[in-house]
Amino acid sequence: MKVALFGAGRIGKVHAASIRADTRSELVAVTDVVAAAAESLAAEHGIAVRSPEDILADPEIDAMLIASSTNTHADLIEKGVAAGKAIFCEKPIDLSLERALRVREIAAASTKPVMMGFNRRFDPNFAAIKMAFDAGEVGKGEMLAVTSYDPAPPPVAYVKVSGGLYRDMMIHDFDMCAFLFGLPESVMAHGSSLVDPAIGEAGDVDTAVVVLTYADGRLATIRNSRRAAFGYDQRVELLGSDGMLEARNEIENTVVKSTAAGVSSAKPMFFFLERYMRAYQIEWAAFVDAVEGGKPVPASVEDGVNALALAEAANRSLKEGRPVAVADVLPGA
Amino acid sequence: MKVALFGAGRIGKVHAASIRADTRSELVAVTDVVAAAAESLAAEHGIAVRSPEDILADPEIDAMLIASSTNTHADLIEKGVAAGKAIFCEKPIDLSLERALRVREIAAASTKPVMMGFNRRFDPNFAAIKMAFDAGEVGKGEMLAVTSYDPAPPPVAYVKVSGGLYRDMMIHDFDMCAFLFGLPESVMAHGSSLVDPAIGEAGDVDTAVVVLTYADGRLATIRNSRRAAFGYDQRVELLGSDGMLEARNEIENTVVKSTAAGVSSAKPMFFFLERYMRAYQIEWAAFVDAVEGGKPVPASVEDGVNALALAEAANRSLKEGRPVAVADVLPGA
Amino acid sequence: MKVALFGAGRIGKVHAASIRADTRSELVAVTDVVAAAAESLAAEHGIAVRSPEDILADPEIDAMLIASSTNTHADLIEKGVAAGKAIFCEKPIDLSLERALRVREIAAASTKPVMMGFNRRFDPNFAAIKMAFDAGEVGKGEMLAVTSYDPAPPPVAYVKVSGGLYRDMMIHDFDMCAFLFGLPESVMAHGSSLVDPAIGEAGDVDTAVVVLTYADGRLATIRNSRRAAFGYDQRVELLGSDGMLEARNEIENTVVKSTAAGVSSAKPMFFFLERYMRAYQIEWAAFVDAVEGGKPVPASVEDGVNALALAEAANRSLKEGRPVAVADVLPGA
Amino acid sequence: MKVALFGAGRIGKVHAASIRADTRSELVAVTDVVAAAAESLAAEHGIAVRSPEDILADPEIDAMLIASSTNTHADLIEKGVAAGKAIFCEKPIDLSLERALRVREIAAASTKPVMMGFNRRFDPNFAAIKMAFDAGEVGKGEMLAVTSYDPAPPPVAYVKVSGGLYRDMMIHDFDMCAFLFGLPESVMAHGSSLVDPAIGEAGDVDTAVVVLTYADGRLATIRNSRRAAFGYDQRVELLGSDGMLEARNEIENTVVKSTAAGVSSAKPMFFFLERYMRAYQIEWAAFVDAVEGGKPVPASVEDGVNALALAEAANRSLKEGRPVAVADVLPGA
Repeated sequence: MKVALFGAGRIGKVHAASIRADTRSELVAVTDVVAAAAESLAAEHGIAVRSPEDILADPEIDAMLIASSTNTHADLIEKGVAAGKAIFCEKPIDLSLERALRVREIAAASTKPVMMGFNRRFDPNFAAIKMAFDAGEVGKGEMLAVTSYDPAPPPVAYVKVSGGLYRDMMIHDFDMCAFLFGLPESVMAHGSSLVDPAIGEAGDVDTAVVVLTYADGRLATIRNSRRAAFGYDQRVELLGSDGMLEARNEIENTVVKSTAAGVSSAKPMFFFLERYMRAYQIEWAAFVDAVEGGKPVPASVEDGVNALALAEAANRSLKEGRPVAVADVLPGA
Repeated sequence: MKVALFGAGRIGKVHAASIRADTRSELVAVTDVVAAAAESLAAEHGIAVRSPEDILADPEIDAMLIASSTNTHADLIEKGVAAGKAIFCEKPIDLSLERALRVREIAAASTKPVMMGFNRRFDPNFAAIKMAFDAGEVGKGEMLAVTSYDPAPPPVAYVKVSGGLYRDMMIHDFDMCAFLFGLPESVMAHGSSLVDPAIGEAGDVDTAVVVLTYADGRLATIRNSRRAAFGYDQRVELLGSDGMLEARNEIENTVVKSTAAGVSSAKPMFFFLERYMRAYQIEWAAFVDAVEGGKPVPASVEDGVNALALAEAANRSLKEGRPVAVADVLPGA
Repeated sequence: MKVALFGAGRIGKVHAASIRADTRSELVAVTDVVAAAAESLAAEHGIAVRSPEDILADPEIDAMLIASSTNTHADLIEKGVAAGKAIFCEKPIDLSLERALRVREIAAASTKPVMMGFNRRFDPNFAAIKMAFDAGEVGKGEMLAVTSYDPAPPPVAYVKVSGGLYRDMMIHDFDMCAFLFGLPESVMAHGSSLVDPAIGEAGDVDTAVVVLTYADGRLATIRNSRRAAFGYDQRVELLGSDGMLEARNEIENTVVKSTAAGVSSAKPMFFFLERYMRAYQIEWAAFVDAVEGGKPVPASVEDGVNALALAEAANRSLKEGRPVAVADVLPGA
Repeated sequence: MKVALFGAGRIGKVHAASIRADTRSELVAVTDVVAAAAESLAAEHGIAVRSPEDILADPEIDAMLIASSTNTHADLIEKGVAAGKAIFCEKPIDLSLERALRVREIAAASTKPVMMGFNRRFDPNFAAIKMAFDAGEVGKGEMLAVTSYDPAPPPVAYVKVSGGLYRDMMIHDFDMCAFLFGLPESVMAHGSSLVDPAIGEAGDVDTAVVVLTYADGRLATIRNSRRAAFGYDQRVELLGSDGMLEARNEIENTVVKSTAAGVSSAKPMFFFLERYMRAYQIEWAAFVDAVEGGKPVPASVEDGVNALALAEAANRSLKEGRPVAVADVLPGA
C-alpha cells in the first residue's frame, strides 16, 4: 500500500514513522506548504516531495494521510474521495459543523475507507476500558469522567485560530464519551480563563467543565485545563452498575525513590507524542486493516461530525448559560 | 469534661468510643427515644440512661453530643445553648434552610462552642490536602473534583424522609468544597435515578453531578452515586496553578495478589464507620480543644448553613434545569 | 478480666491503651522500676502503682502484661505461672536460648494461657497474607522475602545490651518466616556495619541478609537495616506455585502531589508504634479471647523459643561463614 | 552503517526491527543455519540471505549482529574481530569461562567496538536507577535486591544444554549487580527444584537465591524462579544511606477495575520481548553511537566475562554449600 503524506510537521513525522514501521505500507511522497519541512522529511525517508495535484493524480498512490493544517482537511478529503484514494485524516474535519456535514455526505459515498485520526481510541488503556465495558465487566454504564489537561497553554496566536478550547482540545474528550457511551442528549458547559488572561481576552477559555446528559439518565463529565504543572494528564473513569473502570496515566518510568523528603515517582509521559506513541502505531495498523483487509473503519467521518457537534453545543451552552440539546445543533441527532 | 450523648444508634456508638478514648472527656449519660438502645450503650460504658430534660438541667454536664435523628437537631441545639452547654451536633442542622438560619442566629449568641459534625474535614487525607493547599504547595486553586459513592443505596423508606440526595448525601461534598474553595457563586445540578427505580419514584435521584462555579472562575465538580459495587469511594482532587493534590481511597489492607488471573488488591474501606474512624477520633479531640482549650470551632453552624444552602440551590437547579445563584437561596451570600 | 501491667515505658503505654479500649478487660495496677513512669501512667488511667510481689499475690488479678526490660521476662513468666496468672509477655523470652528453653517447659505446664507479643502476626496486612496463603490462593509456597528496616539505629549503649541485631531486631522476621513457612532446616547469615561504625566496633552488624533453607527446598530471605532514611520499611513477599502475595507498607496518608518537580506521596508510617497500632489492639483482643474464650494462643512460648533459635543459628553462621543447621542449636528441631 | 544479522530466530527478529527503526543503520544481510528462518526474515526486510564466510569477507559490511546460538558466539566474535567488523553479540560469550577469557583478550585488541547484549542496562527503569544512584540521590549504596522470575520454565531439553540457571538466567542479574555495585568479593548460592522435578533430575535448579558480598560490606541478593504464574517479574531495589530506589514492573496497561470481587489491575508485560522492547531499541542506538560516534561501549566483553565468573562461582558455591570467593574463579578479580 503506497501512501502520500500531506503535512510534514510534528504530527506528520509521527505518522511517517508509523508507516515505515508497518511492513504492509510504504511512504512514497510528501507535500507541505513549508517546502523546507517537506524536504527534510523526504530526505530522512528517502522519498520525493511532490505537489498535492501530482499526488492526487497519481494512480499508483493508494492512500493519503492528511496531517496538514485544519483549514485544508475538508478540501483534501473531498478531492481525495474524488480521486479514489483511501484517506486517513487528522481531526477535526473542519471548524465549521456545516462544512463537516457536507464532508460527511461525500465520504459516505466513497468506495474507499475514510478514517478520522481520533488517536485516543487506540490507546491501549482506553481500548482496554472499552473492551471490558463492552464485555459487561462492570455492568450497565452510569457515569463517565474524562480528565484531560495539557502541560502548558499554546501561544495565544494559535488559540485565536484554533476554534476555541471545545473544538480544539475537548473534541478528543467528546469523542471519548461518544466512543464509550454514544451520543448524549444535552450539553452543559462551564469555562473560565484562569491559566493565561490573554486567552480570556481572545474570547476563549482555558479551564473548562462540561456535563453531558444522556437520554437514559447516564451522566458524563469532562474536565479540561490548558495547563498542568506536572505534565500531560489523560484519564478516564467509568462507573457501571457492577463496578468501575479507571485508565490512569502512563508514567515515564516505574522508579520509586524514597528518601527523608518523601516518596516520589515519575511524572506522566510528557505530551501527546510520548503518551500516544503506541496509539499512533496501532491506529495506523487499523487503517491498513481497513484498506487492505476490508475491516470497518474504527473512527469515521460521522464520529468526527458528532464530536464537532458536541463542541458546537458546548460553545452555545457557555454563551447562553444553560444546557443545550444536541438535536438543536445536529439535525437528526 | 462531662458529656451526655443524645442518640445511641450507629453513629452515637462511634462517638461514645471516641469520648472514652480521649482521657480529657468522660461520658456520663445517654438518652435515646429507643430505650433498649440507650440501655445497651449505657451498660457497655457503665453509665446512666437519663431523660433529655434531666440532662439539660444538670449543671454538672458540660457538653452535649447530639447524634439523634435529624428532626431533633435544631431543637436540641437551641435548648442546649439556652442551658449553657457546649454542643457537638451531627449534620445537618435541619432539612429546612429557614430553620437552620434561625439556629445559626441562636448559636452565634452562645458563649460555649457549637460545632457541626462534618467529619470529613478531620480525615487525615483531606486534612493533608487542605494543609498542602493552604501552604501554597500547588499554587492558586483552579479546579476541584469530589467523588463520593456509597456502597449501596439506603432503603426507600429512608430516602423518603432524608430530604433527598443533595441534602442527605452530597451535603458532605458541598462542605468539602466550601472547606477547600469557600462558598461558590452558582450551582448547576444534574441527576437521575439509575441505581434503584424506587428512588426515582420517590422523587429523588441516586446518581448526580453538580458543578459549582466561583466568582473568580474556579470550578468544582461533585459526583455522587448511591451505589458502588466495590464499596465506599471517597476521593478529592484539586488542580492548582502549580500542580495537583489527590486524596485517594484508604484500602482495607496493603496486600497485592498476583496470579494468572491478574493482579488484585484490597477494596476501599467498606463504609463511613471504617473509613472515617480516625476522622471521628480527631474530630472529637478538636471539639475538646475548642471547649477546654478555647481553640476556634473547626466546623461551625455557619458551615452547616452554607452546605445546606448549596443543597437547596442544587434542588432548585435540578428542578428548573438551569444554574442557580447561591445568593438566591442564601440571603447575603 | 483484671490486668496488671509490668513496665510503664513506651510499649507499656501502648498496651495500656489497648486494655482500656477493649471493654472486656480492665487495667487495675501498674509497676515499674522507674517510679515516675509508673506513677504517670497510673495517674492517667486512674489506677494504683503496686509492687510486683503485691500484684503476684493478689488473687483478684487475672492477667499480667509483661512489658518490662528483656532481662526480667523469664523470671516474671515463671513467677506468673506459679501464681496462676494468664500471661502476655513482650518478645523475647530471654537473650539466652537455654534460659528460654526452661521457660518453655514451665509455660507448657501452665493451666492459663501464656502468650508472646509477636505483634506482627496481628498486623492486618501480614494476617491477610497468612490467610490467603493458608487458603491456597497462591498454591504451594516456594520463596519468602521479608524486608525490615528501622528508620534510625538505636544508641550504641542499647546495641551493646541488645543481644545483637539477629536476636533484637531480626527476631521478628524469623518469627514471620516461621509463621508463614514453619521452621527451616538451616540458616546462612551475612552482615556488616555500614550504618554506624560504632555498631561494628561494638561487635554487632547493622546491615544484614539471612537466607533460610527448608527441608523441602523452599527458600526464605530476610533483609534488615538499622536505618532507612525514609522511615520504617516493613514488607513481606511470598511466591507460590500459583502466584505471589505482597504486603506493602502502610503510608501516612493517601495524598499524591503532582508538580513540576515530580509526583510524590506520603512516607511509610514512621515506626512500630504508628505502623503496628492496629496490630497491638488486635493482639490484645486475641489474648483476651484466649483467656476468656478458651481460644488457642496465637503466639506461644514455643514460637518465642523457635525465633530465638534461628537468631542463635544466625549468630553462629555469621561467625563461622557457613550455613548452620537449626538442629545444631535447637535439640529436636 | 551496514549491518549483517547472524541468527534469524526470535531475538534476531527483534534486533532486525531495531536496525530498521534507526535511520542511521541499514540491515543488508542475514544468515542462519535454519535456511527457512533466514529466508523468511530476508523476504520481510527485502534483503539477501548470505553465508557467514561471504559476510565476513565483504568489506562493505560494517557491523555484525550475533544472535545465533550460544555455542557460536565465541567463534563469531573472534572471526569478526579478525575481519575488522564492529560487533554486537547477544549474551553469553560462551558457557566456558576459560573460552570467554580468550575472547576477552582478542576483543581487547580490536580497533572496532565489541559490545555484549546486556539489554537490561538499557531498560529505562533500571537506567533511571543507575542514573539516580550515580548522582548520589540516595547516598552510598548498602543493599541491592534483584528479583527476576520467568513466566514459565523452558523445556527440559533446553535446560540440559543451557549451562544451568546461574549461567543461563541469573547471568542477567549478576550483570545488573555489577552494573550498579561493581564486582563482589564472594558468592553464596542456594537453589532447589520446586517448579519442575524434571529440571532437578537434569541436575539443575529452578528456584534460587544468591547473596553477593562486597569487600566494603555491601550486600546484594538475587532471587530467581523459572516460573511466576502472573508473568515476567523484573524488579530492582537499591538501599542507600539516604534512601531507596525501586524499579517496579511495567504493566500491560494502566486500567484498574474495581468490582465486588476486589480491585484488579493488569499483569506485568508478559516476557522479555514485551518488557524489554524499548531496551532493545535503546541498546541498538547505543551500539550505533559507539560505532559511528566513538562513544564508549556501554556493555563490554569484560562485563560478559565478569557475569560469567559470578555464575561459575555460584555453581561452585551451590555444589560445596559454602561461600566462594570471586578471585578463586576469576584470576585477578
